[in-house]
Amino acid sequence: MREVAVIGTGMTKWGELWEKSLRTIFVETALLALKDAGVDKIDSMYVGSMSSGLFVGQEHIASLLADYLGQTPVPSARVETACASGGLAFKLGFMEVASGMSDVVLVSGIEKMTDVNGHEATFALGTAADQEYEGYHGITFPGLYALIAMAHMEKYGTTREQLAMVAVKNHKNGAKNPLAQFPFEITVDMVLNSVMVAKPVVKVVGMGHATDTIALSSRKDITWLEATYQAGKRAYEMAGKKPEDIDVIEVHDCFTIAEICVMEALGIVEKGKGGKAVEEGLTALEGKIPVNASGGLKSKGHPVGATGVAQIIEITKQLRGESGERQVENAKVGMTQNMGGSGGSAVVHIFEKE
Amino acid sequence: MREVAVIGTGMTKWGELWEKSLRTIFVETALLALKDAGVDKIDSMYVGSMSSGLFVGQEHIASLLADYLGQTPVPSARVETACASGGLAFKLGFMEVASGMSDVVLVSGIEKMTDVNGHEATFALGTAADQEYEGYHGITFPGLYALIAMAHMEKYGTTREQLAMVAVKNHKNGAKNPLAQFPFEITVDMVLNSVMVAKPVVKVVGMGHATDTIALSSRKDITWLEATYQAGKRAYEMAGKKPEDIDVIEVHDCFTIAEICVMEALGIVEKGKGGKAVEEGLTALEGKIPVNASGGLKSKGHPVGATGVAQIIEITKQLRGESGERQVENAKVGMTQNMGGSGGSAVVHIFEKE
Repeated sequence: MREVAVIGTGMTKWGELWEKSLRTIFVETALLALKDAGVDKIDSMYVGSMSSGLFVGQEHIASLLADYLGQTPVPSARVETACASGGLAFKLGFMEVASGMSDVVLVSGIEKMTDVNGHEATFALGTAADQEYEGYHGITFPGLYALIAMAHMEKYGTTREQLAMVAVKNHKNGAKNPLAQFPFEITVDMVLNSVMVAKPVVKVVGMGHATDTIALSSRKDITWLEATYQAGKRAYEMAGKKPEDIDVIEVHDCFTIAEICVMEALGIVEKGKGGKAVEEGLTALEGKIPVNASGGLKSKGHPVGATGVAQIIEITKQLRGESGERQVENAKVGMTQNMGGSGGSAVVHIFEKE
Repeated sequence: MREVAVIGTGMTKWGELWEKSLRTIFVETALLALKDAGVDKIDSMYVGSMSSGLFVGQEHIASLLADYLGQTPVPSARVETACASGGLAFKLGFMEVASGMSDVVLVSGIEKMTDVNGHEATFALGTAADQEYEGYHGITFPGLYALIAMAHMEKYGTTREQLAMVAVKNHKNGAKNPLAQFPFEITVDMVLNSVMVAKPVVKVVGMGHATDTIALSSRKDITWLEATYQAGKRAYEMAGKKPEDIDVIEVHDCFTIAEICVMEALGIVEKGKGGKAVEEGLTALEGKIPVNASGGLKSKGHPVGATGVAQIIEITKQLRGESGERQVENAKVGMTQNMGGSGGSAVVHIFEKE
């Protein structure tokens, strides 16, 4: 397989964005990425989106967005694994370049979730769970992750305070993430890197994608995220890396318990030790392994289809040394973990600075 | 890139299937394909589905179906380009094997469309058109293709009778397609092939995927399917084939005018001559280039996400000489064309018997 690198990124400010339509948000963001990469021609594009049908009444957005970006007849595909749709889009873009079929692929994630009312949005999000075995009984995602949290607390003594510390840490990081623009401060390691004329290339060195039962009730241990473990294992093997090689990581903290379980499944901490780790500051910005320097889903936001791609943007910027106030010092190897539903899908990528 | 072949197929009877759920239909069909291929282990899977969210209130079916097939933690991705979702799924499966990332990939297409009422189904299907510029003005797909038909009639003198002949031809073919099982007759060319112990391998020799404006009003000429032309061009180039090399073809006749426009865009007939061609029997089962031997979307049915994969199953069986009453004699090279919306997405594949 050919080597693959991230050559440019674009991200616009997340929010409810009443005044913008799905196509407008996409075009603005895609143009930033094309500009950052210094290309105006692409060979193919992928769009990760969980449910444009239920959220904005528009399927077939692959064609729509290629059209509005002025890129037809370029091939364009929409892909979906619930909240892991963005990570999936990146996987397929990676594969297309790795296979030699295309040289430049535009990967994006998008979701416009507040053009519907709260009830409709809750229903749409709930379609990522097993509708027949979970949804029809009235449970939604806060309930599913609460079950995971209660089991983790029961099994490992994880405390409510530790769950809260995940949110505190991520909000502290997120406060340093302006998102709409790129307001760099001059930091020690940026000065150290200042002799470089070109941006460092961020290579994709590992990828893993796996599934687990969609319904929580079918799992042997609901505190264990098997799909994340399997995806992580494949990504580590492909990259020839171990958990201790990772300098900075973005994980899918759709709920605070999720971040704790993910750290355990990826081997960042031992099984059952995730709560303690966050309490001791291991995963803080200045900790041994900073988790969610971007602010994570908690503070940065979580437009579901967009999340996986935004994680990769964060890691790319961290490895380039472009993260200003929230820069992790000497970050050379980064990782992203994007998850669908209550963990039924997981996509993990590992990146390395050249 | 590595060579890629179709090693097994499975298809169950299409219909409203009130008594079966989405997951049941999938598992039954997937097991047929695994059995036909003689494998029980897969490396990865793709599911083409246009709108499981709007049709059955279930997104994240990639994980759900991997789970119910007993294949977790195998990576599983749902992909969508409206009615071209099945073709897209095959493209990605092709790419994954071609890249060397996986050896055995299960590609599927599925749509359960009648668990909602007629109004809801019409809305769901309409989300494949441009909701802001077409849907909100009340036009649905019959109207969009009627515009294409009227323009084709005006421009090229195509008649209503010729449009009707597309449906007559496809229904005649479809009457010979039992679908639920595989009731072979002994025909001359099956006897000619009878010394073979193994099934002939059907190789994928060409692939093209392209987009066009999603809204009909943005196109220069609404009788011309640019995405289909571009996808066809790429597939012909990759395969080193020309239209006259194709022995049998399945095209996306979501409306009769669509089949006429597709034949023109793929160079099977000259621009404007599609109506005349069907009238003269060129595309009949015994014609020079049989189009939709399966009965096409018209007679076989069109559960949108499933269509593109079913086309590939039909061509695989035609090239294997397993199509019984509707077998095209001496078919060696086959083609499929799958289309989304009013032509905003198109995926074309070319197959050859080894």
